[in-house]
Amino acid sequence: MEQKSANKYFSTVGDGSGLAQSEGLYKEELQLALRNSGMPLEALRYPITPTGLHYLLIHYDIPAVTADQWRLKIAGRVATPLNLTLEEIKKRPRRTIPVTMECAGNGRALFAPRRISQPWLLDAIGNAEWTGTPLRTVLQEAGIRGDAAEIVFTGLDQGVEGDQIQHYQRSLTVDEATRDEVLLVYEMNGAPLPPQHGYPLRLLKPGWYGMASVKWLDRIEAVAEPFQGYQMVRAYRYAQSAEDPGEAVNVMRARALMIPPGIPDFMTRERLVSAGPVTLTGKAWAGHGGVSRVELSVDGGSTWSKAELGESASPYARRTWTFVWDAKPGACVLHVRATDAEGNMQPVDQQWNYGGYGNNGVQRVNVVVR
Amino acid sequence: MEQKSANKYFSTVGDGSGLAQSEGLYKEELQLALRNSGMPLEALRYPITPTGLHYLLIHYDIPAVTADQWRLKIAGRVATPLNLTLEEIKKRPRRTIPVTMECAGNGRALFAPRRISQPWLLDAIGNAEWTGTPLRTVLQEAGIRGDAAEIVFTGLDQGVEGDQIQHYQRSLTVDEATRDEVLLVYEMNGAPLPPQHGYPLRLLKPGWYGMASVKWLDRIEAVAEPFQGYQMVRAYRYAQSAEDPGEAVNVMRARALMIPPGIPDFMTRERLVSAGPVTLTGKAWAGHGGVSRVELSVDGGSTWSKAELGESASPYARRTWTFVWDAKPGACVLHVRATDAEGNMQPVDQQWNYGGYGNNGVQRVNVVVR
Repeated sequence: MEQKSANKYFSTVGDGSGLAQSEGLYKEELQLALRNSGMPLEALRYPITPTGLHYLLIHYDIPAVTADQWRLKIAGRVATPLNLTLEEIKKRPRRTIPVTMECAGNGRALFAPRRISQPWLLDAIGNAEWTGTPLRTVLQEAGIRGDAAEIVFTGLDQGVEGDQIQHYQRSLTVDEATRDEVLLVYEMNGAPLPPQHGYPLRLLKPGWYGMASVKWLDRIEAVAEPFQGYQMVRAYRYAQSAEDPGEAVNVMRARALMIPPGIPDFMTRERLVSAGPVTLTGKAWAGHGGVSRVELSVDGGSTWSKAELGESASPYARRTWTFVWDAKPGACVLHVRATDAEGNMQPVDQQWNYGGYGNNGVQRVNVVVR
Repeated sequence: MEQKSANKYFSTVGDGSGLAQSEGLYKEELQLALRNSGMPLEALRYPITPTGLHYLLIHYDIPAVTADQWRLKIAGRVATPLNLTLEEIKKRPRRTIPVTMECAGNGRALFAPRRISQPWLLDAIGNAEWTGTPLRTVLQEAGIRGDAAEIVFTGLDQGVEGDQIQHYQRSLTVDEATRDEVLLVYEMNGAPLPPQHGYPLRLLKPGWYGMASVKWLDRIEAVAEPFQGYQMVRAYRYAQSAEDPGEAVNVMRARALMIPPGIPDFMTRERLVSAGPVTLTGKAWAGHGGVSRVELSVDGGSTWSKAELGESASPYARRTWTFVWDAKPGACVLHVRATDAEGNMQPVDQQWNYGGYGNNGVQRVNVVVR
């Protein structure tokens, strides 16, 4: 890994603290928001998110890669290093799982002060059918040595972040990496992975925020010590300041989202709804054990009622919820919240952290009923 | 068309002028930027923009529609009103054209003051292969009456904009609508139209900015008088104020864009490049007659050199350009500009207009060479 002090080359955004104290967004945040698309929330209606509507978070550039020149390298503390073509990987056992994925930074721009980074509201979500081969069988073939502690995944995407020239890299412990559901993925929604989702091959770590599912895989390496890469020890931490090492971000916190009812105002996205019974519906998920309950409030969070919960297509996919609301004329704010299997309920406002991660504060939808 | 004073229901953004005087972006602009995805400029490298990377501008919500319940209605001043299923439309003559499309608001956020709306930088572009049937043959079958002046296209998408509850609607004159290249499109890049691009059927008006290519077509109506809908007479005008009727926005102005060279800084998107020969490349287009010349400046706009121009895959598709730059250590700003067939050259800074349309001021790319 090339590491070199590089931040001296580039402009500073804001006051140098990494935080925006003002409400107005910086142009640099806008640049990221236009590159990294969210899923419009009405797309919650599709059982599988159509390709092109799933959220995207691309740290650097989409790398230029063609499958015929590409090889997956498996190296480090293994008995037999491997060098695999895409065709060789596709000949291995094939598995398809519907998986709900969310960016760890979803909700970041709702924190104040706001970490200057990709400024997500609630749109960094998607639910695709991913097809690939279990990582475990490939690791077994390479023969992970007994002194390996972690598996490091390196993408082809390269850029400067913090003060380092780096390829995007994340690690998993050997235990995490060899779980059943961890796949090397080459198809999304029944078609080859699109370039923006990691073509030709990406990792899929169901149940965790998206940063773990490394795209454009180049190299998989077994290492003896916990990996100290930028995206492990500096980014993706629940921390209180730039200096605080904090805790690792991993499993997706509980979240419910609704399809905004009625029709939108173009500019504010506030909703216009006709009075009478309105079926509110949406999806809910949680990384560990799924959701146990979804509740609605139609009075701005004062009182809550239980929604009906549908089944899940896999242990790692969201569930549909529905609630019939008798809409009365006037303005109101709808809220929805989920509780996970362990009883953790979405907070009205999530506790702040420096990186702006894991903000699962409840969704609020402004509605005018006429 | 339902028209009703509706803006009283919703919040005002900014000071009510429709313009942002401050540099910082409003949260409402961010909401739009996260829904309406741009094309990351490295995707200029793909001859055909992969599905999911083409820009999107969705005024209201993506409508819920299934092809079996959907019908295209052709009505108004026609001899024989038609009511067509998707299968009936697909049985008609089939034509595929590669077409470069750009949002009329591309570059809006680079104007100051900035119209408060979708805050595009330079990303609202794409180049897809669209398949459909010529609109003309369908209009001929319906028999446009001699007193028809315009054809009005109505989408299924509905919302509030300005003070009107409206479906998205645009018109073309009969002459414009019956040109060879105007298609009713049901496939994009060889697959059924994705929901976000107008499934099951959209209009395609090659050479014009994207607002003319109405998505989610519901109704096509021949009318005797020029259509006075919101998206014709209030939005999409080159005007100097909210009150100025201005001039219609239609044909795409010349533009050249480059793939940002080297690797990006995550936050600023500034580029790090190694010294030596660097092949700069990108695409250029213009709505009428295409581009005649592309020029590069590697010294911040002081001097310009001609790039090599490749061929175009259709009269409505962009051309590739290339230029070999001998990069010397230090910071610099790269510029690229196109000139159209009529000699109109991209300005360094485009003249301001109230709606923020047609801003084809030259692209600037900040680079550090090491």
